[in-house]
Amino acid sequence: MPNQSPSLDQVFHALADPTRRGMVERLVRGPASVSELSGAAPRPISLPAVLQHLQVLEASGLVRSEKAGRVRTCRIEPDALRAAEAWLTGQRTAWETRLDRLGDYLAGQGTDGQNTDDIRRGS
Amino acid sequence: MPNQSPSLDQVFHALADPTRRGMVERLVRGPASVSELSGAAPRPISLPAVLQHLQVLEASGLVRSEKAGRVRTCRIEPDALRAAEAWLTGQRTAWETRLDRLGDYLAGQGTDGQNTDDIRRGS
Repeated sequence: MPNQSPSLDQVFHALADPTRRGMVERLVRGPASVSELSGAAPRPISLPAVLQHLQVLEASGLVRSEKAGRVRTCRIEPDALRAAEAWLTGQRTAWETRLDRLGDYLAGQGTDGQNTDDIRRGS
Repeated sequence: MPNQSPSLDQVFHALADPTRRGMVERLVRGPASVSELSGAAPRPISLPAVLQHLQVLEASGLVRSEKAGRVRTCRIEPDALRAAEAWLTGQRTAWETRLDRLGDYLAGQGTDGQNTDDIRRGS
């Protein structure tokens, strides 16, 4: 089984939290400071909490941040988003390919649509 | 911020484990019994461990299972895969749209390619 990469573990873990997904949704629209991320959260969230979530996002490779003077600016890293999307697209495609082949096979057997649906569900 | 759905939390949490991703990769190729899933794991894994991972996958909506006699058969539920893929595609698209707009803006300013690249990186 491919895609056992530890980074997919970290990317999916990072995305399993609504606050962190909210931070990603903000950062795909452009860089933001930590306090801007705090303000963009769906519920009020403290700066230390934002920094903790930021740490998880940075460990996963989804976000990077740089400090200039007193301001830490966060940016999205699109490669990690793309890797997770590619894994999901691969699974969906494999599933659809299998359904298509089943459909072709059943069409070749001359079964009608109703039976094909029944067999698809039960297969 | 949209997409705060609890089910995305559970889907991404379920996918943050390589054994569970391996079970999904097996199930997109067709239904499987619990012992088949145990055999398909990248490392030997006990039936109780498979059942625990199965519970997480079922809670997320990625997989459903049915018992017939002594055999429990597991199937993929593609809607949960699609929901996670759609969220990721939305983020990637938003990011790319922003880059395109920046590129258009900079082209309109008459900057050359080198400067555009520099500004994109720094923006």
